[in-house]
Amino acid sequence: MAEESVSHSSLIGAPPTEVRAAIRRGAYAGHTAGLAAGYLQCNLAILPERYALDFLRFCQRNPKPCPVVGVGDTGDPQMRTLGRDIDIRTDVSKYRVFRDGAFSEEVTDISNVWADDLVTVALGCSFTFENALMRNDIPVRHIESGRNVPMFRTSIDLVPAGPFGGEMVVTMRPIPEHQIEQTRAICARYPQAHGAPIASGDPAKIGIPDLSRPDWGDAVEIHDGEVPVYWACGVTPQNVLLAAGLPLCITHSPGHMLIADVAEDAETTILKQT
Amino acid sequence: MAEESVSHSSLIGAPPTEVRAAIRRGAYAGHTAGLAAGYLQCNLAILPERYALDFLRFCQRNPKPCPVVGVGDTGDPQMRTLGRDIDIRTDVSKYRVFRDGAFSEEVTDISNVWADDLVTVALGCSFTFENALMRNDIPVRHIESGRNVPMFRTSIDLVPAGPFGGEMVVTMRPIPEHQIEQTRAICARYPQAHGAPIASGDPAKIGIPDLSRPDWGDAVEIHDGEVPVYWACGVTPQNVLLAAGLPLCITHSPGHMLIADVAEDAETTILKQT
Repeated sequence: MAEESVSHSSLIGAPPTEVRAAIRRGAYAGHTAGLAAGYLQCNLAILPERYALDFLRFCQRNPKPCPVVGVGDTGDPQMRTLGRDIDIRTDVSKYRVFRDGAFSEEVTDISNVWADDLVTVALGCSFTFENALMRNDIPVRHIESGRNVPMFRTSIDLVPAGPFGGEMVVTMRPIPEHQIEQTRAICARYPQAHGAPIASGDPAKIGIPDLSRPDWGDAVEIHDGEVPVYWACGVTPQNVLLAAGLPLCITHSPGHMLIADVAEDAETTILKQT
Repeated sequence: MAEESVSHSSLIGAPPTEVRAAIRRGAYAGHTAGLAAGYLQCNLAILPERYALDFLRFCQRNPKPCPVVGVGDTGDPQMRTLGRDIDIRTDVSKYRVFRDGAFSEEVTDISNVWADDLVTVALGCSFTFENALMRNDIPVRHIESGRNVPMFRTSIDLVPAGPFGGEMVVTMRPIPEHQIEQTRAICARYPQAHGAPIASGDPAKIGIPDLSRPDWGDAVEIHDGEVPVYWACGVTPQNVLLAAGLPLCITHSPGHMLIADVAEDAETTILKQT
């Protein structure tokens, strides 16, 4: 942390290993949107082993909000199938630590929190399909307007497993009506990144009272001819973990994702051994 | 088992619930190929809970041979996300029971083997993509010639997890050279059913000494202009479970799959609650 800071813009175009190296040596603690283009970025959930089987069952039963892309060995800080030399204790730019179901601290290194009974689960993230939408000239409003994506609690029940359950959180992106089918088809190609939208149109039918007041992130404008489209959101598992009141769990901070060496359009999220 | 037997041909066209009901009441103990067209069929692995976390990690790291489509609660014989009233103790037509890493018995009901610490894992199966290939007029030789698909051990290392590891088993189907790209594209749409082929052409490069001598199933003819194409095979997890020497594990018998209520082309394998 003694080192000079590296800027977000100077990391654009750098490969995943270089971004992670800057993060590891304490030179970069910012968000990862727009970095390591073409590579998979991941939501993070670190929890004690005795909850891990139920959490993996929960993710399997709710694959759209919780697409598992990597699972570490118990106590092993390396994420071997996601990249070469990924140390999960130091290679994410910002973490949130929760104790007994309450926020405890936000840190840039979890080496002193890491323990032999912890299991890391990495989950896919919306950056993957947003990049694909933009490559296909489909507008992504919150990115255009430099905001965070708006996120909403819904009335959509999750399929429970052990202590894990609740309702789905969704993101909303306004999409021109004539591009909705194309949007659906593009996103369906990325099951590792929330897949196709789960709903579109009237927010009330999925229990959202007011699109101008998101539960997290920023409201965005919906233009004439656009329809609000809803995707399952990676905040869902964070909420579910929090509600379960585990003695300890650790997540990334919003927007501060784990960057993998796996291509975001690879058929599987398992790094080929070379 | 006192009841009169139902034939395979009389079950063709019946919905999953009717096929499972016939199996449950002991009236049908045959294979499930060609039954419940359009619905997902599953490989089965039932094992003690203390191995389940490592087994799920193993499957996540080897998604092509081991695509997880359903995980039961510990001790719960119902597979709630795969269908309505699926009792895993009675609803598969034939099971194999293994004890201490060795084959013990083949049975049509595991009610007296079931225990409170068992976890059921259902894995996708090649029937799904074979049906898709045939719908697209791509020949599936072993079906045309009324044989079992030829299966081969390979030299392809699996990514290990806990006691689970080894080499991949593949199936081989000869495909006309001009249809290989189409075959790849079709199968890639079914990640829940082994996905795109893992190799094609020379068997030696994946450690297969002789295509006329499969390790399981039957040899099939390769016609002029056809190329042998290899897919990750659901026998892989069975082999891996066996090699791990668990005190108890139960699988389906080859060809006697679990039939789910989920459509085989659904975006996820989780039954929508209705």
